[in-house]
Amino acid sequence: MTDGTGGPRPISTAFLDALGRTTDRKRAAFTPLDSPFAGAGAATVEAVRAATESGREEIVALGREIHAHPEEAFREHRSVAIITALLGRHGIPAAVGWHDLDTAFRAGLTAEGPDDGAPDPDRGPTVAILAEYDALPQIGHACGHNLIAAAAVGAFLGLHRAVAAGLRLPGRVLLLGTPAEEGNSGKEILARTGFFDAVDAAIMVHGFGYDVVDHPFLGRRQLRVTYHGTAAHASASPFLGRNALDAVVLNYQAIGLLRQHIPPSDRVHGIVLEGGDRPSVVPERATVEYYVRSADPATLKDLSERLEDIARGIALATGTRAELTWDPVPFSLPVRTNGPLAARWAVHQEALGRTALAGGVVPEILAASTDFGNVSVRIPGIHPMIAVSPPEVALHTREFEAAAGSAAGDAAAVHGAIGLALTALDYLSDPALRSAVGRDFVDAGGAVDVAGYFD
Amino acid sequence: MTDGTGGPRPISTAFLDALGRTTDRKRAAFTPLDSPFAGAGAATVEAVRAATESGREEIVALGREIHAHPEEAFREHRSVAIITALLGRHGIPAAVGWHDLDTAFRAGLTAEGPDDGAPDPDRGPTVAILAEYDALPQIGHACGHNLIAAAAVGAFLGLHRAVAAGLRLPGRVLLLGTPAEEGNSGKEILARTGFFDAVDAAIMVHGFGYDVVDHPFLGRRQLRVTYHGTAAHASASPFLGRNALDAVVLNYQAIGLLRQHIPPSDRVHGIVLEGGDRPSVVPERATVEYYVRSADPATLKDLSERLEDIARGIALATGTRAELTWDPVPFSLPVRTNGPLAARWAVHQEALGRTALAGGVVPEILAASTDFGNVSVRIPGIHPMIAVSPPEVALHTREFEAAAGSAAGDAAAVHGAIGLALTALDYLSDPALRSAVGRDFVDAGGAVDVAGYFD
Amino acid sequence: MTDGTGGPRPISTAFLDALGRTTDRKRAAFTPLDSPFAGAGAATVEAVRAATESGREEIVALGREIHAHPEEAFREHRSVAIITALLGRHGIPAAVGWHDLDTAFRAGLTAEGPDDGAPDPDRGPTVAILAEYDALPQIGHACGHNLIAAAAVGAFLGLHRAVAAGLRLPGRVLLLGTPAEEGNSGKEILARTGFFDAVDAAIMVHGFGYDVVDHPFLGRRQLRVTYHGTAAHASASPFLGRNALDAVVLNYQAIGLLRQHIPPSDRVHGIVLEGGDRPSVVPERATVEYYVRSADPATLKDLSERLEDIARGIALATGTRAELTWDPVPFSLPVRTNGPLAARWAVHQEALGRTALAGGVVPEILAASTDFGNVSVRIPGIHPMIAVSPPEVALHTREFEAAAGSAAGDAAAVHGAIGLALTALDYLSDPALRSAVGRDFVDAGGAVDVAGYFD
Amino acid sequence: MTDGTGGPRPISTAFLDALGRTTDRKRAAFTPLDSPFAGAGAATVEAVRAATESGREEIVALGREIHAHPEEAFREHRSVAIITALLGRHGIPAAVGWHDLDTAFRAGLTAEGPDDGAPDPDRGPTVAILAEYDALPQIGHACGHNLIAAAAVGAFLGLHRAVAAGLRLPGRVLLLGTPAEEGNSGKEILARTGFFDAVDAAIMVHGFGYDVVDHPFLGRRQLRVTYHGTAAHASASPFLGRNALDAVVLNYQAIGLLRQHIPPSDRVHGIVLEGGDRPSVVPERATVEYYVRSADPATLKDLSERLEDIARGIALATGTRAELTWDPVPFSLPVRTNGPLAARWAVHQEALGRTALAGGVVPEILAASTDFGNVSVRIPGIHPMIAVSPPEVALHTREFEAAAGSAAGDAAAVHGAIGLALTALDYLSDPALRSAVGRDFVDAGGAVDVAGYFD
Repeated sequence: MTDGTGGPRPISTAFLDALGRTTDRKRAAFTPLDSPFAGAGAATVEAVRAATESGREEIVALGREIHAHPEEAFREHRSVAIITALLGRHGIPAAVGWHDLDTAFRAGLTAEGPDDGAPDPDRGPTVAILAEYDALPQIGHACGHNLIAAAAVGAFLGLHRAVAAGLRLPGRVLLLGTPAEEGNSGKEILARTGFFDAVDAAIMVHGFGYDVVDHPFLGRRQLRVTYHGTAAHASASPFLGRNALDAVVLNYQAIGLLRQHIPPSDRVHGIVLEGGDRPSVVPERATVEYYVRSADPATLKDLSERLEDIARGIALATGTRAELTWDPVPFSLPVRTNGPLAARWAVHQEALGRTALAGGVVPEILAASTDFGNVSVRIPGIHPMIAVSPPEVALHTREFEAAAGSAAGDAAAVHGAIGLALTALDYLSDPALRSAVGRDFVDAGGAVDVAGYFD
Repeated sequence: MTDGTGGPRPISTAFLDALGRTTDRKRAAFTPLDSPFAGAGAATVEAVRAATESGREEIVALGREIHAHPEEAFREHRSVAIITALLGRHGIPAAVGWHDLDTAFRAGLTAEGPDDGAPDPDRGPTVAILAEYDALPQIGHACGHNLIAAAAVGAFLGLHRAVAAGLRLPGRVLLLGTPAEEGNSGKEILARTGFFDAVDAAIMVHGFGYDVVDHPFLGRRQLRVTYHGTAAHASASPFLGRNALDAVVLNYQAIGLLRQHIPPSDRVHGIVLEGGDRPSVVPERATVEYYVRSADPATLKDLSERLEDIARGIALATGTRAELTWDPVPFSLPVRTNGPLAARWAVHQEALGRTALAGGVVPEILAASTDFGNVSVRIPGIHPMIAVSPPEVALHTREFEAAAGSAAGDAAAVHGAIGLALTALDYLSDPALRSAVGRDFVDAGGAVDVAGYFD
Repeated sequence: MTDGTGGPRPISTAFLDALGRTTDRKRAAFTPLDSPFAGAGAATVEAVRAATESGREEIVALGREIHAHPEEAFREHRSVAIITALLGRHGIPAAVGWHDLDTAFRAGLTAEGPDDGAPDPDRGPTVAILAEYDALPQIGHACGHNLIAAAAVGAFLGLHRAVAAGLRLPGRVLLLGTPAEEGNSGKEILARTGFFDAVDAAIMVHGFGYDVVDHPFLGRRQLRVTYHGTAAHASASPFLGRNALDAVVLNYQAIGLLRQHIPPSDRVHGIVLEGGDRPSVVPERATVEYYVRSADPATLKDLSERLEDIARGIALATGTRAELTWDPVPFSLPVRTNGPLAARWAVHQEALGRTALAGGVVPEILAASTDFGNVSVRIPGIHPMIAVSPPEVALHTREFEAAAGSAAGDAAAVHGAIGLALTALDYLSDPALRSAVGRDFVDAGGAVDVAGYFD
Repeated sequence: MTDGTGGPRPISTAFLDALGRTTDRKRAAFTPLDSPFAGAGAATVEAVRAATESGREEIVALGREIHAHPEEAFREHRSVAIITALLGRHGIPAAVGWHDLDTAFRAGLTAEGPDDGAPDPDRGPTVAILAEYDALPQIGHACGHNLIAAAAVGAFLGLHRAVAAGLRLPGRVLLLGTPAEEGNSGKEILARTGFFDAVDAAIMVHGFGYDVVDHPFLGRRQLRVTYHGTAAHASASPFLGRNALDAVVLNYQAIGLLRQHIPPSDRVHGIVLEGGDRPSVVPERATVEYYVRSADPATLKDLSERLEDIARGIALATGTRAELTWDPVPFSLPVRTNGPLAARWAVHQEALGRTALAGGVVPEILAASTDFGNVSVRIPGIHPMIAVSPPEVALHTREFEAAAGSAAGDAAAVHGAIGLALTALDYLSDPALRSAVGRDFVDAGGAVDVAGYFD
């Protein structure tokens, strides 16, 4: 029991301790993933690996440079300039800016050499390697996007070197710079204006406390409910008021009770944005805001509808009017991992001494959201996680920010670059793999009309 | 602050203490009510007063006898038998039973003598004196209905004696026995089958801790809300359930917050009737029941509608279905006190040494409900309170039950009989008073369609 | 039922309509108050009345001038300058400033003539006439303090003229300027530094929609509860968080349920000041703020303790820590009206054609708070309301602001001045009245240790 | 949106559909478990397998007979009689009854032949095979305990036949009949009186929709909170009441909000047992009851303490007294699966054509509780699940009851018998396995003082 003197009961570590033990056990028992596909074949793979590896210094330098100069979403100008300058030094003509997003960029590569990455359906199979480079407010690269950029650019440069050395690349590789992942959804904004047109598959890598090839990312929406009531003198004539804050409180409580009755992978968490002006006046306006997450687009839709029912039901119950605002920033759908691509990634990581775990080993509850989800339901893709920090370090902490600028981060960027280069290479080289990638995508539901999904 | 050892903080008496001081001050400053009407005139009044007073022994004996044999609503057979036997001994041919209510009774009196009380629009102005005689479960005549019966019968016998002695009664007096006031609404059941047809005014008296001529009685309705959800295993698959108990809890909380925003004379209070079967099963059915009270029919209607909005809004918010049951027992409307009649009552009580207070002196918060309310909005009426107990004794307590069988109760019954007899006499004797009674009734809204009021 | 199209159910006027009818009935039946005391005697009263009345133009001009230049609490420099200039023109040496409050002022008057109002226990019986002059933010003199000032100054000048004309004032009259009543508690700040030392009684007048001699003012406190929890990522590891907003919501709901179980004159109303920063972070800090009101110091204390129990109980229930801040601005106790003084006021108002109603006529639910409450439990006092606007106009509205600058406001200021002058005169002139005033004060609880009341 | 006409929104199957797809994928990718231990060696294993298999008809008949005559907890007399009669026919002298539990039974087997199963520390390594045989109210063997009994008895008889045929059993096998698992905790009652003394390991098998060797079972406690308030007339003097139902509702809401902040494997679900008597009386007593579950004893303890804080905090907040009753029936701890034993089970099931899945494949959310948990933290043990029904059929349904009496049930009983016989045999035969079993048990926390765990 707590009291005035001793303060609240300390937060128990029992769950995390038990979870850590379970995870350790599962990791120890884990059998590395295998792939039934040949990919590009051993010799070609080795050539590209070596070509990518040879760029190690550039990769590390790029990752450290971006890390040292964090820029928030939509303002990543310096980061983009550094990247495109590096590309330019290799003779790669990147195109910066895409519609309203002036910190997006593109570059392309075929057997004919580098190009500006403009969408082109006539260049054969096309795989995109995605680079993120935005940072968080206050805590910089605490999500390690500097490493995402370094690995993606490193992979592209490795393939470029291999092509220059004679590799007959049977298709096209794009390097796509996608800004504004944190607190926003740059990839969705880009997708709606054709950024991923003529792309057949998309791959990227993200730092983490573990190596995992298919860690779950939840879909995420945002709901703001403003209740409009009627002001009145709270002491003299409260019976003439309709209390918007009462509505917010009941809404919040209804959400609290709802949590028992949603799937375990659903999440709703909220804050009160407006809660009245002065105690002596019945609040005529009050606002609550929620993040709404789920592991599946269909369950996210169902959860959204239940939140709408709550918003409207509470308005009826309190004599107020509910104004609902969905997704002031574009929503993110859950990441759909393409199995055959994931297995190629895992095979290549294993060769580097990293065992990329499959789902069910690392705790799935450690679930956040990413705008790559929206890409992954438009075209096949993977978003593997690569170990940068010890397991107990969470993303979005100062500890992770330090790891993203450490030697472990450097190593992850290089291994990430090799993994991306080889997976892209396999995809373009192996028609049977491409077919399997397509079937897996169709089996998982095929292409989703993202923009209209919740209408 | 409370704790495990000391138990909860004691309930403060500060409010009641302050209220008592205020009431004492107001009583001390109170100017007795006066009436601008002559009524029956001094001589006639004195004759009827004496005729009623002469029945003191019968009145006291009747009150004590009913008190000693309490009978609950609809089962007041012995009480009715005692009363009609007494009437019979005076040659008054009471008619027992009215439609389905076999413990109702009627008797009549005109200048021609007693009759069986059958409705008759051709006997001139008609005033009814109402008798209640049902008791409470377990605690007997803790609402003092034995005294209501004794006073009503005593008044009727007093007038009967006066007529026998030559009084030219200019109209008709009815003695109406109305059962089942407690926990039910006998008068409403009777009214719907014509029991009060051809009655121009209705008067009765009720015991209390004070003499008050117009103490407020709130209107009262009853609402039962059953929520229907969906059962599921509460541990393995709660996400397949819709929790009816969640709905009940949110409904109860919404009512809690509503209380800040209803008029101060409104009341809602509830219990949970059904709250689930076993913790391991998500409750598919749960029920909450409320009493809903207000000082005015219109505010009671508004309050009812707000409770319906809550019931339905919470169903929407919880994905359940709300089943609403209003008034399994007929509702009661607030008592509408007729001003001119009340003043006559007050004048006659003052002559007996009792100052009948007007509203605003005795705390109005001590508010209950009565089925006389439904009579008082059909025809003009009064329902004065007469002091039987000390002020601090509440109705429906064992202490009040004792007072209703004490010498103070006897005195109240006799004074009540005199007051009822003289007020009835005035009403029939004074056309100007009758006109004023009618105008006051119309000014207060006129006759209400009770049965259809909330449709 | 409401819906998306039609919007919420309209707010019913049924209660206010019924209340209006009841109030009209009670006003019509009201018998004007009388006083058993002689006061100053008819001739003296008439002299002072005429002397005050002769200042009509000054009174009206002062009220209009302050009205035209509203100044908020603690910044009433221009208003004070106008008043003291007027006093100065009559040779009255007012002293401006008192400790930290530089918009307080004082002036005195004895049979020897005017003085600077410094506290002096040796000048015989002393009665203070209080002037307020602060305005509200945005809506100016919507509480009519310009009229309070005009009436107080007018009364003092009337008495000054009478003394100049030979009145043998048997004691001392003080004119005390008390700033910062709105949103603060200037009188309490003054009282704690001796401003009311050597004062035997205090009187003032306040505008309203009715003439009422003892309208209730509730005591008021302010409670801010900040809960301190533990932040955590709301999606990935909410189980590591302790949610301060959960605590605020439960606190608010507990207050909602509490409202059923507090005396009808208690009030609690609140807002949420801080409700979390971002939905993705479990709120580690959240704040709710309440106004807490009650009609009696003892019930206000009890209510305060129950709110503390709620604050602490919810902290325990949520694993958070509650930080309670009481009364950042000094609290106000309820106004204790002195009966004998009130009756003198009523008698003098009746002579002016105004019937000052007693409690129980005007609806007591229309209850606000004033810092005069704290004066009234230190020394005997009255705070009568004088009609300035139609009954349906509420204080703190633009409509009342207009009334306070209208001809009705002018008339109220003059009648208020006469009432204050004559009541002060009576108090000083009639030893029997003074004794009764003292007894009434003692009977009501005597002097209260205000500063330490809630410790 | 729902409405009065259309009823509530239908319950979405999206989550279960997605879960089914995921599980299918994981099953397809699952690599069967292997064991590094030799166990009893191939020839001995084959002999015992054949000896057990030869009892197929007895096993099936026993399972069907118990299924046809379901008996609830503590009343399994007929079931026990059938089992012991069968044992008797094989010359095995079972002992029926243990302290107060007269439907427990024991039998033993060593190289010397069968015995009455009395605890004996001097007979070498001892492994117990546990039989359950109680049924559910109304829905009979909807948890398939008939198959548990048939498999356990079949395993024992198989080993008995092998011993009779010359097997040198290097230790002792016990057949332990443990009644009253459903809605109670028979094994805990037995354990507290020494039933498992001198037992080194305990194994049993349970029917399910999948073959899983280590399906999680949550620990479970039961908490009843009765709040004691103060009754009062809910209309006339609610301010004199302290509302126990308010406390129950706030407690329920606090639990609702708590659910966001507990580990994902925690569960709390409740019902309202007592919610007041009549709306007109403030409830002086109200009761809420919860089941409290968690995946780990330490997290269950932490969760329990948080519920106590809620119970007490809400009492403080409502001015009531909380009476807490924990575990009227003994609690169950989570099942701790012994890894080396589980792997032996899996190996033997694989040989029978059943792939026993490991954790992380079958959804762990489908989590119930069992009293075997309390055994499994006293001595090493396994509680594998064996497929009896299709995956979508839940335990405790009429559909599962049918499956438990079907040919699929028969097959599961025989395969279960073989698995238990061989796992017991391995344990006794292989000292290296026994050492590993012990180490695994110690690594998982060693023996727990169950009875005193929550003190």
